[in-house]
Amino acid sequence: MIHILLIVCSLFTFSANAAVQDFCVADLKGPDTPAGYTCKPAAKVTVDDFVSTGLRFAGNTSNIIKAAVTPAFAEQLPGVNGLGISIARLDLSPGGVVPMHTHPSGSELLLVTQGFITAGFISSANTVYVKTLKKGDLMVFPEGLLHFQVNAGGVTAVAFASFSSATPGLQILDFALFANDLPSKLVEATTFLDDATVKKLKAVLGGTG
Amino acid sequence: MIHILLIVCSLFTFSANAAVQDFCVADLKGPDTPAGYTCKPAAKVTVDDFVSTGLRFAGNTSNIIKAAVTPAFAEQLPGVNGLGISIARLDLSPGGVVPMHTHPSGSELLLVTQGFITAGFISSANTVYVKTLKKGDLMVFPEGLLHFQVNAGGVTAVAFASFSSATPGLQILDFALFANDLPSKLVEATTFLDDATVKKLKAVLGGTG
Amino acid sequence: MIHILLIVCSLFTFSANAAVQDFCVADLKGPDTPAGYTCKPAAKVTVDDFVSTGLRFAGNTSNIIKAAVTPAFAEQLPGVNGLGISIARLDLSPGGVVPMHTHPSGSELLLVTQGFITAGFISSANTVYVKTLKKGDLMVFPEGLLHFQVNAGGVTAVAFASFSSATPGLQILDFALFANDLPSKLVEATTFLDDATVKKLKAVLGGTG
Amino acid sequence: MIHILLIVCSLFTFSANAAVQDFCVADLKGPDTPAGYTCKPAAKVTVDDFVSTGLRFAGNTSNIIKAAVTPAFAEQLPGVNGLGISIARLDLSPGGVVPMHTHPSGSELLLVTQGFITAGFISSANTVYVKTLKKGDLMVFPEGLLHFQVNAGGVTAVAFASFSSATPGLQILDFALFANDLPSKLVEATTFLDDATVKKLKAVLGGTG
Amino acid sequence: MIHILLIVCSLFTFSANAAVQDFCVADLKGPDTPAGYTCKPAAKVTVDDFVSTGLRFAGNTSNIIKAAVTPAFAEQLPGVNGLGISIARLDLSPGGVVPMHTHPSGSELLLVTQGFITAGFISSANTVYVKTLKKGDLMVFPEGLLHFQVNAGGVTAVAFASFSSATPGLQILDFALFANDLPSKLVEATTFLDDATVKKLKAVLGGTG
Amino acid sequence: MIHILLIVCSLFTFSANAAVQDFCVADLKGPDTPAGYTCKPAAKVTVDDFVSTGLRFAGNTSNIIKAAVTPAFAEQLPGVNGLGISIARLDLSPGGVVPMHTHPSGSELLLVTQGFITAGFISSANTVYVKTLKKGDLMVFPEGLLHFQVNAGGVTAVAFASFSSATPGLQILDFALFANDLPSKLVEATTFLDDATVKKLKAVLGGTG
Repeated sequence: MIHILLIVCSLFTFSANAAVQDFCVADLKGPDTPAGYTCKPAAKVTVDDFVSTGLRFAGNTSNIIKAAVTPAFAEQLPGVNGLGISIARLDLSPGGVVPMHTHPSGSELLLVTQGFITAGFISSANTVYVKTLKKGDLMVFPEGLLHFQVNAGGVTAVAFASFSSATPGLQILDFALFANDLPSKLVEATTFLDDATVKKLKAVLGGTG
Repeated sequence: MIHILLIVCSLFTFSANAAVQDFCVADLKGPDTPAGYTCKPAAKVTVDDFVSTGLRFAGNTSNIIKAAVTPAFAEQLPGVNGLGISIARLDLSPGGVVPMHTHPSGSELLLVTQGFITAGFISSANTVYVKTLKKGDLMVFPEGLLHFQVNAGGVTAVAFASFSSATPGLQILDFALFANDLPSKLVEATTFLDDATVKKLKAVLGGTG
Repeated sequence: MIHILLIVCSLFTFSANAAVQDFCVADLKGPDTPAGYTCKPAAKVTVDDFVSTGLRFAGNTSNIIKAAVTPAFAEQLPGVNGLGISIARLDLSPGGVVPMHTHPSGSELLLVTQGFITAGFISSANTVYVKTLKKGDLMVFPEGLLHFQVNAGGVTAVAFASFSSATPGLQILDFALFANDLPSKLVEATTFLDDATVKKLKAVLGGTG
Repeated sequence: MIHILLIVCSLFTFSANAAVQDFCVADLKGPDTPAGYTCKPAAKVTVDDFVSTGLRFAGNTSNIIKAAVTPAFAEQLPGVNGLGISIARLDLSPGGVVPMHTHPSGSELLLVTQGFITAGFISSANTVYVKTLKKGDLMVFPEGLLHFQVNAGGVTAVAFASFSSATPGLQILDFALFANDLPSKLVEATTFLDDATVKKLKAVLGGTG
Repeated sequence: MIHILLIVCSLFTFSANAAVQDFCVADLKGPDTPAGYTCKPAAKVTVDDFVSTGLRFAGNTSNIIKAAVTPAFAEQLPGVNGLGISIARLDLSPGGVVPMHTHPSGSELLLVTQGFITAGFISSANTVYVKTLKKGDLMVFPEGLLHFQVNAGGVTAVAFASFSSATPGLQILDFALFANDLPSKLVEATTFLDDATVKKLKAVLGGTG
Repeated sequence: MIHILLIVCSLFTFSANAAVQDFCVADLKGPDTPAGYTCKPAAKVTVDDFVSTGLRFAGNTSNIIKAAVTPAFAEQLPGVNGLGISIARLDLSPGGVVPMHTHPSGSELLLVTQGFITAGFISSANTVYVKTLKKGDLMVFPEGLLHFQVNAGGVTAVAFASFSSATPGLQILDFALFANDLPSKLVEATTFLDDATVKKLKAVLGGTG
C-alpha cells in the first residue's frame, strides 16, 4: 500500500503541472490577447466559472424591435474563454425582429425552442437562404455573412444561438450606419440611400453628423 | 441606367467568383480531409443544406441508460462542415444517464431546455466540477475531458449540446473498455479493474477477448 | 567525389518526398475544401502559378460607382491557395466609391499608390474609424467589419488591398439587400428602411420580390 | 567599407525589431493565455531556455505501476511555448504499465528506445488498434483518444512520447474516476461499475465521496 | 420614440460588451504572447492605430546592397496585431539587391509599383522559381522558403511585400552566417564554404568567432 | 438484457458515424490539400497505418556528410496526417554533419539517444544559440529558422527529431544554392559569395547555370 501511495503522489504531481492547459477561464481584469483573455489561476477556478444561469429568463422585449438578445460570451461565462464556443438567448415577442446583422468572428447555429422564426442569410454571391423554423429546428449562418431573424407566428418565440467563438462579435447594420457619428454624406455615398432616409434613421437611432 | 447595369454585372461577376469561401457544404460522397469534407458545388447548395429538422422530436430512451443522443454534426447537417460548430439533442428519461465520455475534437456547451440535469467534468489535475442545472442553465465542458450528464429530477430532461467542431467525436468510456475486442488482460492491466468486473461488463456490452 | 554524389542522391530523394507541403497550388478543377482547393501535382507547377500580371492595368471604372475591383485571389492566382494571403487592385475615378461592404473571411490592409482616398470602418461597438489617405499610406480593416473607400481628390486614385486569406470573400451591402430575391417585406422589417426606398433601390440594382 | 557598415547597421535594426516573433519562451511567472504563456523578454533568453537535460536519467519506477513519466512540456522546457511541440520520457520496469489515459490537447507519437512495449488506442468508433513495438518503432495516438502502454518484455523499456502541443495535458482514467471527490454514486451511475469495485479503487487511489 | 430609445440603449450595451474581439490593437508596452501582443484597452484606441504613414517615402538605399526595407509590422502598425497581415516597403536603387532570406512565420505577396524586379524562391524539392516582374505584377513566396529580389532595370524599383502574419520575421542568410558569433568552424562545417570565404565575409559583415 | 442490446446498437451507430474525425489516415493516392492528404476510408484503416518500423535501423552514412536522415512524415507514416506531428531519425558517423537547413512548416524538437551532438540555430535577430548535447538531452529549433547538427564526439551519434507538422519540409541551404539551375550570377548577387566559390560548390553538388 505504501507503493501505491508513492505512485499516487508522483503521478499526481505530474497531473497538477499539466492542469492549466485543460482550460483557460477568463481573468476579466487581466489583459485581453488575440487568442482571448489571460487565464484565472487554476486554484481560483470553481464550477461556477463553467456554469451560467443568466439565460434562464426571457430578456425584456418591451422595445421597438420587440426582441432581446442575452449573451453568454466570455465576458458573461468566463469558462468558455479560449474554447471556441459561446451562446446567446434570443427572445422575440410577436412582431419581434433581430435586425440584419453580422458576427465578424464566428459562425452561428440557431436552435428554436419555442414558437416560429423566419431566419435567413445572404452569401457573398448574393444568394438568399431563408427558412421558417419551428421548435427543435436548426439553421446555421456562416461567419461574417448578413443574417436576420423575425418572429413568424402570433406567439413569443425563443431561440438559442451557439457561436464558433467565445467572442463572436455583433455588428447590427442599422446601428453601424445610423447610430454613430459617421457623416451622413459618407453614409449616403457608400449605401446609395438618399439624404432624407439617412437623416430620418439617424434621428431615430441617435446618430450624429 | 445603362451604367448602373454595367456595374451590377461587373461587380456581380466578382462576387460570384468569391462565393465558394463563404461556406463549404459537405459533399458526403466526396473524400474527407483533415479540415472536413470537400465542398458541394455552390450551384447545388440550397437552404436545406443549412437547416435541420431532425432534432424536433425526442430520441428513443427505451434502453438501459434511458437516454438518447441525436447529433446534428456535419454528416447530418452538411452546412456546418468547416464552420467549427455543431449540436446534438439529449433526451434523458427519469433515471437516464449519459455515461462518462469525451469528445476528442471539441469543447461542449450544454443548454438544459427541460427538467433537471446533474452534469460534471474532471480536469487533468483531477479536480471535479459538478453542478445540477435546470431549464435555461448552461455548462461548458472543455475539449477532451471526461464528463457526464444524469437526470436529476423525476421528469424527463432535455438538453442541447453545442460543440466547437463540426465533427467533435464521441468516446464513451464503457464502450471503449468493454464493447470491443480489447483483450481483458489489457483492460485489467491498464484500469486496475478485476477480471470478474471486466468480464461481466464485456458480457453486457458485447465485448470479446 | 563518388561519395559526394551518393549524398546528393540520397538527400535529394528525401527533399523530393518532402516537397508538396511547401505550397499547395490550387487545382481549380479539383474539389474545394474548408482549407482551400486541392493541390496541383508538384510536377505540373511552374513559376507562373505564383505570378500574376492581371493587376498591371486599371479596371474599367465606367460605371455608376466609378470604381473597379480586380482580385488576385486563389482563383486568379492559384499559388496563394492555402497560404493565407491574397490581394486586389482598386481603381477609383474622381467621385468613385467602393460601397459599404465586408470581407467575411479576412482582414484587409489597404495601400494607396495614387491619389487620395477616404476610408473607414465601423466596429461592433459602433465606433467609426475614418481617415483620408494619400500615396504610401496604409489602413487596416479588421475581419468581418463594415468598411468603405471613397475617392477624396479630383484625380483617379489607385490602391491595393491585401487580405489575410486566399479567399477573403466580399459582401457588398447594397447588393445583399437590393440585388437579389430577398422579399422587400423582410428587407424592410430587418433594416427599418421604408418600402419606397427599398423598392427604388431594388429597381436600380435588379432585385426582385 | 563605410557603406557596408551602414547597411549592417540599418538592416540589423530591422532584424532586431523583428526578433520576438521567432519564438516565445514562456515567462512562467507571467499570466497564461489560451495560446500559451506570455513571452520572456528576448534580451533575457539564453540557449538554456531551448535545452533540457532533465530526461537524461530514468524516472523512479518503484511504484505500483512500475512506471515513470517525466515531461518536458512548456513548464519544464520554456522554449517550446507556443511552438506546438513537447515530449516526455517513459520508463517501464518489467511489468510496468502506463494506465489508460488521454491527452486532451494533443496527439502523441511514441518512440521506443529500449525494450518492448505493447501500446494501443481505441477510436470513437470503438475499434481497437494495438501493436507490440520494439526499439526504433513508432506509434501515433490521435488527440483525445484513450490509449495505454505496457511493458511487453522481461526487461526495462524506455520510450519518448512527442506531442503536438506544448501543453498536451494528461487525464489518467483511474485517477479521474477514483482519486478525487467525485461521489461514488455518480461514478457508478456513469460507468456501470458496481459499488464494491468503486469503493475498493477509491480506497487504493485516495478518492473520497 | 421612448421605446426606440430603450432598444438603442439595451442593444448598445450588448454591442459595447462585444467590442473587444473585433480587433486587438497591440499594447507594445504589455507582454507578448504566442498569438501576438496583449490588447490596448478599446477606449484608448484611435483611428491612428489602424493607419500608417511611414511608408510614404523611400528608404535610404545608400548602402552596400543599394536597398531599403521599411516594415509596417505589429510594432510599427499596432492595429494589425492578431489580424494575420502586415506589409513592408522595398526600395531598390539600380543594382540594388534584397539578399537571399526567409520569413520564418509568414508567406509573402510581392507587388511591384515601380521599375523592374527579378524575384525568385527555391522549394524544399530544390526547384527554382524565378521571374522578372514589372509595375503591377505580383509574385507569392510560400512561408519559410529562401527567396530574393534584385533590381532588373536601370531605374529605381519600388515594391510592397504583404505578409500572412503581423510579425512574419526576417532571416537574412548572410547575416545569419557571417554577422554574429557563430564560430567559423561551425559555419564551414555546415555550409561547405572554405575558411577564407567565411573569414572574408565575417570581416565585411561584422561577424566574430 | 434486450434493453441493453438496444442501447448498444443505437449508441454504436452514433459512434460509428462520428468515427472519421478521430483521425485522417493519409490516402497517398488521393489529392493533397492545404490541411494534408485526403483520408483513407475508415474501414480500410489498420493498426499498421499508425505504426512505423522504418526507423529501427541506422541510415547509410557512407556519404560526404557522414550523415543520414530517415523521415517518418505523412508519406512514410500515413497515420500522422492531419495530426500536426511527425519524426525523423538522424544518424551521424564520427565527423558527420547535418548541414545548415530550415523546416519551412514546423518546429523541431531534437532528442539525442546516442553519442554527442553540437546543435544550434540562429534567430531573426541574428543571435546564435548553440549547445553540445548528450544522450537524453533535448533542444528545440523554432519553425523556419536556420539550424544544424554536428557530431561532437568520436563515436556515432543518433538522434530523433520530432516536428510540429506531419509534413515539416526540409530546405538544405547548400542544395538550395548550389544543387539546381539557379544562375550563378543570381547566387552571387544575393549571397555575396564570389564566382569561384559558387562554381566550385555547384560542381560538387550538381548545380547548373
